[in-house]
This record gives sequence, structure tokens and C-alpha cells, in this order.
Amino acid sequence: MDDRFGLDRKVALAGPLTLDGGGTLSPVEIGYETYGTLTADASNAILVCHALTGDQHLASPHPRTKKPGWWQRMVGPGKPIDTDRSLVICANVIGSCMGSSGPGSAAADGQPQAMRFPVITIADMVRAHAMLLDHLGIARLHAVVGGSMGGMQALAFAAQYPGRAGAVLAIATSARHSAQNIAFHEVGRQAIMADPNWRGGDYYGGEPPAAGLAVARMAAHITYLSEAGLTEKFGRRLQARDVKTFGFDADFQVESYLRHQGLAFTDRFDANAYLYITRAMDYFDLAEAHGGSLAEAFRGNPARFCLVSFDTDWLYPTPESRSVVHALNAAGAPVSFVELSAPHGHDSFLLDVPALDRVVAGFLG
Amino acid sequence: MDDRFGLDRKVALAGPLTLDGGGTLSPVEIGYETYGTLTADASNAILVCHALTGDQHLASPHPRTKKPGWWQRMVGPGKPIDTDRSLVICANVIGSCMGSSGPGSAAADGQPQAMRFPVITIADMVRAHAMLLDHLGIARLHAVVGGSMGGMQALAFAAQYPGRAGAVLAIATSARHSAQNIAFHEVGRQAIMADPNWRGGDYYGGEPPAAGLAVARMAAHITYLSEAGLTEKFGRRLQARDVKTFGFDADFQVESYLRHQGLAFTDRFDANAYLYITRAMDYFDLAEAHGGSLAEAFRGNPARFCLVSFDTDWLYPTPESRSVVHALNAAGAPVSFVELSAPHGHDSFLLDVPALDRVVAGFLG
Repeated sequence: MDDRFGLDRKVALAGPLTLDGGGTLSPVEIGYETYGTLTADASNAILVCHALTGDQHLASPHPRTKKPGWWQRMVGPGKPIDTDRSLVICANVIGSCMGSSGPGSAAADGQPQAMRFPVITIADMVRAHAMLLDHLGIARLHAVVGGSMGGMQALAFAAQYPGRAGAVLAIATSARHSAQNIAFHEVGRQAIMADPNWRGGDYYGGEPPAAGLAVARMAAHITYLSEAGLTEKFGRRLQARDVKTFGFDADFQVESYLRHQGLAFTDRFDANAYLYITRAMDYFDLAEAHGGSLAEAFRGNPARFCLVSFDTDWLYPTPESRSVVHALNAAGAPVSFVELSAPHGHDSFLLDVPALDRVVAGFLG
Repeated sequence: MDDRFGLDRKVALAGPLTLDGGGTLSPVEIGYETYGTLTADASNAILVCHALTGDQHLASPHPRTKKPGWWQRMVGPGKPIDTDRSLVICANVIGSCMGSSGPGSAAADGQPQAMRFPVITIADMVRAHAMLLDHLGIARLHAVVGGSMGGMQALAFAAQYPGRAGAVLAIATSARHSAQNIAFHEVGRQAIMADPNWRGGDYYGGEPPAAGLAVARMAAHITYLSEAGLTEKFGRRLQARDVKTFGFDADFQVESYLRHQGLAFTDRFDANAYLYITRAMDYFDLAEAHGGSLAEAFRGNPARFCLVSFDTDWLYPTPESRSVVHALNAAGAPVSFVELSAPHGHDSFLLDVPALDRVVAGFLG
């Protein structure tokens, strides 16, 4: 039994990992899970990359919330990402708080690094993934897959390690963060930093900045849903009452829902990790690292690509995917592209959208 | 010289004003300004209603910021709202903080009312406007005009006082707040209430919850601009530096801009007023008060109506205006409607959009 594989794995790799920001990370701790079995020729591995607030618990219950894995419906025996046929890997990104190196990790002095942790980028996250693959003895992936920030990692992995993934599936994502994307993240960061409990990031062992983190989550959550989806789900319906109270309680269902989303998030996520990961996303601009040409990022890349967008996603709307497709066309890479119709906006990639299942299963083959 | 007219007026009307929430307001203090001269038959008055964070300084410098009035470009001699021909009135809404009754007003005990101030509605604001018109001896308006929350007041004024306005011009607005609109406001309110300086609203005389209010303003400000407008204005350009700092300073221009918007706002606005006015907007649903039929709100209304939307406004997008137009059609009211093309989203109604000037001038005649 090879204990590198299975649920709830954690490894400390020596590194060093050279970071875009100039420093290095050593050791590089990575929390990850694998599902399924690697073939003898190590040719059946699929790396699934998680989104901003996601984690390695792709298809196993979350240790704190006890909820099913975030892509349980997509990953498993006989599912579109079929663990009967593939070894599926999901690793917590560096900068996060679920076992990988991040602001909550201990420094040499034994104290949490907090804001001493270096600012990282999507490319740095991908470097850590590649180090993990080396550790697992996987020279080449059958595919790399991700939605939202996971899609950014998938595209970056292809650009940074051409030939290391046979197929690249990027869902509801973008090759660069727009001004509006940055703006929403900045609101969230300011909400966290405005919380007196944040204390410059040194809140470990004390009260965390939960109120600020909840506000950040609430603002972000609105961007994950479509206006029509919110209207369908909540409209102007009142929460457990027949008449308006003319007060500041959560009179409307949508208020109650948002407050719950904010509070629940603070139980499972570290505020500093939220700062670091949103920052990494804001810095993401795949073209920038290639002289401003996105096509250059993919020139000569042997992988097959597939881009998926959702028609109601206003966070990373279809034109963002389309510009990646145009770049891949210009680079001569084989690419398929589909805009799916789904009512719930950006979060559709996590929800029950059978058309997405068919696209994923068909593309991964 | 009639001192009811002119700049920087303030009046305390006895009331009582009966509120939608059940209570009464007495006295009703109203801060307002007038521009131009009322004709002997009092037939040339135009009431301009301001938006959420607006005020009565329509065409005169703001007393605190010293900036020009918020609609200086639209209101004045020879301008689309022509003060050579009309008496133009703009009154601070109740619930606000620029001279009208609001949470900062003193209670009977001499202390600020803070959260003892009753929750008010758009209809209540409009009742206060009508009381002011009575005070000014204006039985009938030539027109009532407003953008955003001002447009809600204009529509509500028409519905509550049929025949009292000859023309109704509602710009970039909606007849009801959507779930997404409520959600964004709730984020802002939670940001304010999460600030320990808020102290249940009792911060007058001490430190106000400026950090929370700034976050609220930042989140709201994003909704006032279009994604394309933000991209055009800021894109991913860095703020006064050549390279990314890999830190949490405002590396990007859009971050620096948002932080400035948030901070500047706290100098001129009261956090509790922000709570009360956003709540009033959330409660706004003109159809609800008429058995769920928006057409019933306007049945038999003798006014001419004009609705204006902007193609890049995602806060109150064109379909919101169109649904008002459909209701007016169903009610048999004369209505014109135009969707203007302007790049800057919801805020376009405040910006240099010559086509809007032409529509306003043409409609007001």
C-alpha cells in the first residue's frame, strides 16, 4: 500500500519553490486527496484544481462542515470524472488553509506566519501542483481540470508545463482578472482588514476577524449568482413572516440567505488565506507573462483544450472564455468551446447542470 | 423677498407625517434649495428628487466637499432643466443627513435619535416632499424628475398624488428593488453594523463607523459602474508604479480609486442615514401597494411620463424601465421611453451624456 495515495494526505516537500514575487517557499506543504488507482504506466491521472474557497475535499466529506465533497456529483465511480478509470488528484492550493502552506502555517519561530507569508500567484500554485505530481511519480497528466480559479490554474498549468497535460478543461473562468473582478476582491479585503480583530493578520490564537470575513463572503457570493437566479430563488419574498417589520432584521429571504452564507463561511475558512488567494487571482494575467499575447502562452502546446462558459455568469462572462479560445486558435491548438445555458450564474459549474456532465465526460473520454 | 425660496433653506413643518411603518414623524424637518423664480400662478415648479447618497445641493456647491452641485450640468440658466423658466426645487429626503429629519436628528431628550428614528419608505419621503410643496404654495408641479432612487420618488409621487405633477421623468430606475439590489444593500448594512464603532447606532459624539461605511460605499460603487467602463477607465493598470509589489497595497488603479471613493464618502455621509435610506429602497415595490399590479398604480393618471434607461446599467437595467412603460401603457398613460447608449453604467445619469440632456430638455418642454 502506497501511502502517497488516498484521502486526507499531507506532504511536506523540501522545495524550494521559487515564487513570482521573488522569494522562495521551503518546505512546501501540500494537503491533497486522490481517488481511484494509478495505472502501472501512470498514464491515467487527472488533476482537478479547486476554486477560491474550495479545497482538496473534491469527493469526500469536508472535515469541518461534514458536507459532501464540492464536486461529488462530478467525481466518482462511473461519474463524468470516473474514478473507476482515472486516478483523480485534488490539492489544496498554497496560500489556503486546508493543509497546504499558507498564512496560517508556522514560521521558523513556531508562530503562524500571518502576513509574513509571501504573496503568491496562480503560477506559484501551479508550481506546487507540479511538485506534488513529481512526488506522486506522475510525469504526465491525462488531463487538468478546473472551474473558476481552478480554470485559471488549468490554463496556467498548460502554459507553464507544455506537454505535461494531455487535455485541459477550463470552466467558467478567465485568462485575466478584470478591473471589476479586482474591485470586488478589494472590497472583500478591505472588509477583512477593517475588522479590528484582524490586527494586521496576527489574530491566530485569538478572535478571528469573522465579521469582516462574513461581509467579504457576502459581497463575493452575490457575484457567484445571477440576478435572474436570485429573483427565481428569493424574489422579494419575506423570511418567515407575513408582513414587513420596518426594521433592520433580515426581512427578506435573500438577506437571511446572504447572512447565513457569510457566517457559515467563517467557520471553515481563514481570513488571511482569503486575502492571499484573492490577491493571487487579481495578479492573474496569463498574457502578461508572454509579452501581452495570450496566444504566445499556448504556442506549440500539444494539449487538447476545452473551454466552457455559462450564459448567466457575469463574474467570468462568456467573452472571457471566447478570448481564450481565440488565442488557442491563433496558437494552432485544438480547442472546443461551449457556452451552456444555466440559470444560476457563475456557481453553475458546481451545481446540477447535466449538460456540463456530458461535456466533461465527452471531453475527458 | 420670500425667504421660503433660495439656497440652503431649512423648514420644520408641524406634521404629523403618517409613516408606512405605522408611526408618525413630527416635526418634519426638511433641508432644501430652490433655483429660479416661481410664476404668479405657481405653474412652473419642477421637483428634482435626489438619489441614495445625494442631497439638496443640486446646482450649488456642496457645503462640506465644496464640489459643484450633483446635477450642475443639467440644472441652471439655459440648461435642460432651465432655471430661467422654472422654479426648481430639490429637497433632502427624510432619513438622510443633510438637514432633513433622520437618524441624526435630535429626539425629545435632546439626544440623536439614532436607531430610534422610524424606518421610512420611499412613499414616506414623497409625503414629505408633498408637505414641502404645500409649504411653498405649490399645488401642482410642472414636472417631477429623478434618477435612481430619485426616479423611484418621481414614480411614487405620480402614484400617490395623481394630478399633482403634469409630467414625470424617471431615469435609470425601477419600480421595485430586485433580490440582487437588496443583496448589495444588505452587504453594505452588514459592513456598517460589523464596525465596532457603530455601537448599535449610538456613535454620535464619538468615532463614527467610518471603516464599515467605506466598505459599504466601495461595494455599492462597483454597482454604479459598468464592467466595460471600469475596464476602459482602469483596466489592469498599476497605480503610480511600474511593477507589481506582491503585497496588499493598492497596486491597481481600480483599488486606489475604490479606496478613495470609500474614504471620501465617510466625510460627507452619516452611516445610520445610509442604513435607513438603503432600507427604504429595499422596501420599494410600487406594484405591491396596488394589489400587485403596477398598472393600477397609474390608472387614470393624467401625467405625461418619460422613462430613460442606460444600456450599460446593470443595477437598474433596461427591462426594469420597460416594465414600468408596459404598466403605463396598460394604464393608458402617455409615455415615452428611450434606452440611451452610454459606457459608464448606472452613474451615466450623473455624467456627461448629451443625449440625456436632449431627452430631458425635450420632455420638459
